[in-house]
Amino acid sequence: MTDFSWNIKKKSKNSNARIGVISTPHGKIKTPAFIFCATKAALKSFSTADAKINNTQIILSNTYHLMLQPGSELVAKHGGLHKFIGWNGPMLTDSGGFQIFSLGQGSVADEIKGRKSNTKIKKTLLNINEEGAIFQSYIDGAKKLLSPEQSIQIQRDLGADLILVFDECTPFNVDKEYTSKSMLRSHRWAIRSINAFNSPHIYQPRYGSAGSQEVYGIIQGGIYKDLREESIYFNQNNIDTFGIAIGGSLGSNKEEMKEVVGFTANKLKDNRPVHLLGIGDPIDIWEFVKNGIDTFDCVSPTRLARHGSALIKGRKKKINLKNVKFKEKLEPIDSNCSCYTCQNFTLSYLYHLFASGELLGLQLLTNHNIFFMNDLMNTIRVSIENDNFEKTKVEWLNS
Amino acid sequence: MTDFSWNIKKKSKNSNARIGVISTPHGKIKTPAFIFCATKAALKSFSTADAKINNTQIILSNTYHLMLQPGSELVAKHGGLHKFIGWNGPMLTDSGGFQIFSLGQGSVADEIKGRKSNTKIKKTLLNINEEGAIFQSYIDGAKKLLSPEQSIQIQRDLGADLILVFDECTPFNVDKEYTSKSMLRSHRWAIRSINAFNSPHIYQPRYGSAGSQEVYGIIQGGIYKDLREESIYFNQNNIDTFGIAIGGSLGSNKEEMKEVVGFTANKLKDNRPVHLLGIGDPIDIWEFVKNGIDTFDCVSPTRLARHGSALIKGRKKKINLKNVKFKEKLEPIDSNCSCYTCQNFTLSYLYHLFASGELLGLQLLTNHNIFFMNDLMNTIRVSIENDNFEKTKVEWLNS
Repeated sequence: MTDFSWNIKKKSKNSNARIGVISTPHGKIKTPAFIFCATKAALKSFSTADAKINNTQIILSNTYHLMLQPGSELVAKHGGLHKFIGWNGPMLTDSGGFQIFSLGQGSVADEIKGRKSNTKIKKTLLNINEEGAIFQSYIDGAKKLLSPEQSIQIQRDLGADLILVFDECTPFNVDKEYTSKSMLRSHRWAIRSINAFNSPHIYQPRYGSAGSQEVYGIIQGGIYKDLREESIYFNQNNIDTFGIAIGGSLGSNKEEMKEVVGFTANKLKDNRPVHLLGIGDPIDIWEFVKNGIDTFDCVSPTRLARHGSALIKGRKKKINLKNVKFKEKLEPIDSNCSCYTCQNFTLSYLYHLFASGELLGLQLLTNHNIFFMNDLMNTIRVSIENDNFEKTKVEWLNS
Repeated sequence: MTDFSWNIKKKSKNSNARIGVISTPHGKIKTPAFIFCATKAALKSFSTADAKINNTQIILSNTYHLMLQPGSELVAKHGGLHKFIGWNGPMLTDSGGFQIFSLGQGSVADEIKGRKSNTKIKKTLLNINEEGAIFQSYIDGAKKLLSPEQSIQIQRDLGADLILVFDECTPFNVDKEYTSKSMLRSHRWAIRSINAFNSPHIYQPRYGSAGSQEVYGIIQGGIYKDLREESIYFNQNNIDTFGIAIGGSLGSNKEEMKEVVGFTANKLKDNRPVHLLGIGDPIDIWEFVKNGIDTFDCVSPTRLARHGSALIKGRKKKINLKNVKFKEKLEPIDSNCSCYTCQNFTLSYLYHLFASGELLGLQLLTNHNIFFMNDLMNTIRVSIENDNFEKTKVEWLNS
């Protein structure tokens, strides 16, 4: 326990926004912070060395993907994820719940964020019962069980600093009855996860050890305030975790999401760091920091880059470098940005890379987007420090 | 002329191997050196910053590709290729001849290197006449002419330090009569190229200037020694160029290539640096350095990486990381290699990246292969300096 700590350094006067420090055996995380996704033990098109150069504090990997490929035992043989992927900073792993239910039911991510999705994903979730989730491997079709105990075993093998209890991530289109039933089961799974986590003689890394770890609970309850309150009570009083994450469905549109996150986050005590699962839109981040969210994660910065989009300040959010209007533009994405991409390359060059199918384009945009998100979080932290969060937010959104 | 110089620092006692320095406005190149291909103004999956970290001295881009996309005028508007691609070291551009004839006739590259190719490439070369080559753009199907004067105009726009005369790269399957006719036309094209190069008031960068440039002649003659001799005489006596490149067909197999390159290179005076076009096999490099070749270029280090292969010392040359035998190997590609990839990642991790389709795999192998080639060239230079080239060569090939 001594390897970890959570300290709030300063709170805003006019909101729940706060700056703090999460200390881990692999270093400190200044919050509010953004967590980048190395889903399958690799940042998409980007090295961990470059992530560090671009001020990245913490990255995450996914239990679900890694249990299937390459298998958590092989990662344990390396001495854990940090060594496997060449990253000696803080790491988090999710519990696998989100992916199983997401891949099993179609795109939960779209639903959580209030987007309509036309994506047809083959359902791989076979059954959920008290024991856990039974699903089909997308690698070889084999039938697999993921239970709270298995999730903890795998996360012990992976050895990330911060790990999550196993949960069911309910989509928004299920009714209140199912959401309640699922929440209560997730609470029981949380207790089993923590019991497994506190049984290091049973659930230990199968080869060597990557060091000590701490666990986050997850607040469920979907869009129902009474259920959220019940889950908040459970997480704050019935289980003893290092941190708390807000999970489950956040509604079917942005307004509902704002309502659900605001309602939930504002009710949390400040004795644990609060993570909001799966949210990475800069405008949302400005909003939710105000509610006391300390960390965020999302695939969006790297995914947008792969699709040709560069993040920019302001309400427009992004520009797409595949657009021919950039063909002859001799200025960078943002002349005030001090990332490698903006310091060295024009919009015209980036357009050329995408037009001619050069993978370097993805890398240079990923570089910009990662730098951008870290710069955004730094701007937020400085504004809280200097008591001008609201003013800075308005300036940023209007730039 | 004062921006450029060529100095031989030391010659081997037992062969024509030599170390030297090519000075350019963008820095010095210690020879023997390898030139990496940024064909379409980008190293494949790799930034110019990382190329520099991996000891890269010089890179090249291709007139043919860049004239079609994005167009050399746009590059000139940036102030030349160096600024366009964020590389302030020495650069070379080829004249476009190789690609037109290669893409026009199927895979000339395979023929030059004595490999049989089954690749069916759509023929885009429409006609060759005294004026130049008429071909169809692979971008939009438009009919284009590339002449010696146009090639120089484009290379002026691109602004590389070292540029090439326009030539026809004859494949090995044409007869001696055609090879001779083509060689003589390439000689006339060389004279026209140099006249254009020496007419800076006509053929100047269309926007601003990237700085001074120097030109290389190209020795033709295919596999025919009398033609090679004629072309050597022409290049050494009839035209005044900074450097000399060996081009055209080098035969239908490795033995013929060794014969042709050895015969040609050994007849060259040492007053100009000698470039061998399109050869990048480490075993060939050890061979041809002995004949007095100063610089090499080839797409192979980056292409092999994209196909999952890592270069290794010795006659085996490479290993393929897609092979499942590497799945659980916890050692790096080469535990004596000090590149970022070998210092941080296991074969098992690299296998995982390819197995799970992560583009980072390409980047990490490209990193290793670029470092490897620069390290090879450094090993060669040090061995010449220390008078133990042959011993070092044998050790390297047997490691």
